[in-house]
Amino acid sequence: MTKDKELALSKAKGRKAKGIGEARRLSDIGEFGLIDRIARRLPAPGAEVVVGIGDDTAALRVSGDRLLLATCDIQLEGHHFLRDKIAPQQLGRKALAINLSDIASMGGRPRYALVSLGLPKDLAVSWVDALYDGLQEEAARFGTSIVGGNITGSPLILVDITLLGEVEEDRLLRRSGARVGDRLLVTGTLGASGAGLAWLVAREEGRGTGDEKRGTRNEERGMRDEVGEVLAAHFTPTPRVPEGRAIGATGAATAMIDLSDGLASDVGHICELSNVGVRVEEARLPIALATRVVAEALGRDPTAFALFGGEDYELLLTAPADRVGELVAAVGQTGTPLMDIGAIVPAAAGRTLLLADGRTIPLEPGGWDHFRG
Amino acid sequence: MTKDKELALSKAKGRKAKGIGEARRLSDIGEFGLIDRIARRLPAPGAEVVVGIGDDTAALRVSGDRLLLATCDIQLEGHHFLRDKIAPQQLGRKALAINLSDIASMGGRPRYALVSLGLPKDLAVSWVDALYDGLQEEAARFGTSIVGGNITGSPLILVDITLLGEVEEDRLLRRSGARVGDRLLVTGTLGASGAGLAWLVAREEGRGTGDEKRGTRNEERGMRDEVGEVLAAHFTPTPRVPEGRAIGATGAATAMIDLSDGLASDVGHICELSNVGVRVEEARLPIALATRVVAEALGRDPTAFALFGGEDYELLLTAPADRVGELVAAVGQTGTPLMDIGAIVPAAAGRTLLLADGRTIPLEPGGWDHFRG
Repeated sequence: MTKDKELALSKAKGRKAKGIGEARRLSDIGEFGLIDRIARRLPAPGAEVVVGIGDDTAALRVSGDRLLLATCDIQLEGHHFLRDKIAPQQLGRKALAINLSDIASMGGRPRYALVSLGLPKDLAVSWVDALYDGLQEEAARFGTSIVGGNITGSPLILVDITLLGEVEEDRLLRRSGARVGDRLLVTGTLGASGAGLAWLVAREEGRGTGDEKRGTRNEERGMRDEVGEVLAAHFTPTPRVPEGRAIGATGAATAMIDLSDGLASDVGHICELSNVGVRVEEARLPIALATRVVAEALGRDPTAFALFGGEDYELLLTAPADRVGELVAAVGQTGTPLMDIGAIVPAAAGRTLLLADGRTIPLEPGGWDHFRG
Repeated sequence: MTKDKELALSKAKGRKAKGIGEARRLSDIGEFGLIDRIARRLPAPGAEVVVGIGDDTAALRVSGDRLLLATCDIQLEGHHFLRDKIAPQQLGRKALAINLSDIASMGGRPRYALVSLGLPKDLAVSWVDALYDGLQEEAARFGTSIVGGNITGSPLILVDITLLGEVEEDRLLRRSGARVGDRLLVTGTLGASGAGLAWLVAREEGRGTGDEKRGTRNEERGMRDEVGEVLAAHFTPTPRVPEGRAIGATGAATAMIDLSDGLASDVGHICELSNVGVRVEEARLPIALATRVVAEALGRDPTAFALFGGEDYELLLTAPADRVGELVAAVGQTGTPLMDIGAIVPAAAGRTLLLADGRTIPLEPGGWDHFRG
């Protein structure tokens, strides 16, 4: 484990060390004991939660004036994470964050989460405590209440979150509204999560040979901040919830999606559903310095991380050119930049990337496909 | 495989035989190909589904006058089912049914389902088609639209359903409202699912010895209808949705829960949350003839199936004695019987079972606990 990772995990570890029942396993307290424990650890919900954890379903107040948004996304051990590579608190934050990002991409406000867990019975109770610490931390940060879920025994850890949100109907942003002539915009920066994952993989592979290992460690000492930044982007991505609300409030955007599989793949969904093409400009891609530094250390192309890395959880949207200034200003209020990275073109013009050297190449999905990958 | 099971599966098999792409695996069509395929196979949703499958979230119209009900429940291979013992269509029906039952137990009306799937990449595409046939069949039967979900690769099949429903606030039924003096009532019959599971296990174990195997087969030939009935109860339980609505509409019930873990366990949740005790009368337990016949053939006690068998998905409720007639009449309108099986007593009197022979014994949970089991 690198110092950076150690630092990143120290908070969770500190909590673990002083936790009650450190040595206890789930098999010691049973399913109902665990449900009671979780319900006690979570804050009392507000009055809008008429029935929370502990009955057959949650019962919730919602507004009939708004649309209900509903999404679910799973994190499965061995497929989305490795148990010994992510702290449970980080996993809790990330599992909720990827769902918050989906609500954000519709222009919505997250409200209620259900947490479906599959847990091995020899898992430490303190591990589940820390998972819920992460879930609750992320929920509280974005005004969301954990109102229910279910727990089952499972050989692999799985965390499947359902998130409910609301959006004013006139602010709803779909993937299908992009029009020829629109600009393509993206919040924040691209490629940091992919660079973080690549760093982890390189370090892992480096373990095979002493020299490579020492090499990686040495690099790391000289760029601790950069590595920490890309690892944080990978382990605890920030869902763009206030940014999505600000974008929706302008009424200027025509389509929106969140970046989970990588820009090259996700922009394709907007193109397909809007029946348009796109031209992305490499020179306009916002790539953080840390991502460039880590990419260089790994001998990798930062643009590849930005296009294919995945898991950036930034918002990708389209808007008429004359509304871009307004959108940049609105998103800027949240402290997050919004960059113009290309143009929506006719479907017949295809999906292309204008390289920094002036050549144009096809922009093809290289994002993670769960079955082909 | 028994004739009964063969019969039960023949519909699914017939569909499979004529299915398109029988030999194709999920790895052949990829994640997005599968999502497209599912979206095309499902019926077009009604106008209340503003955004369905294919965007970042579903966007749904709901009523601000009613409470939103939200629940999720998972079916995991090896834990809740065996891949070669249940047809995919049956699994689809059951995975939705157990969630419909939760909405029913709150007095609610189911509306929207999200389907989270974990699927091995070598799984046949036709298997997923049949799963969705089952899901859609059950959804349509109870006025529910499948509006979204997510799919991930997984070594084990997992089907995690989130179900959203609605209930008028004055009809909401919780676990916590039972009062001393109330009667304890149950819909339908008890123990059939447990008897079905016991039959499957006995047949499996009987394979070890030719004699035992022949014995089981011979029994079966003489009681095909009974075995078919308890197997159907196990594989495709009927959620008591109209019954739950009818009960809620009377305003007479004080508490309600659905029977998933077994009466002895589930009545305990009402006792705990209502701070009461209970006295169940063995002689009043509704046990179908088929359950008794199968129990006798297995040398098992039918009362044990009724109390501890689990997965009956009947509704268990409490109501003042003078409202029982009204409830029996209301539920009777749906074609389902409602039986009075005992009394709510002070918490100090504990939870007891009055046996048919006049003795009283403690009624202790023997239901399936996912970690202790």
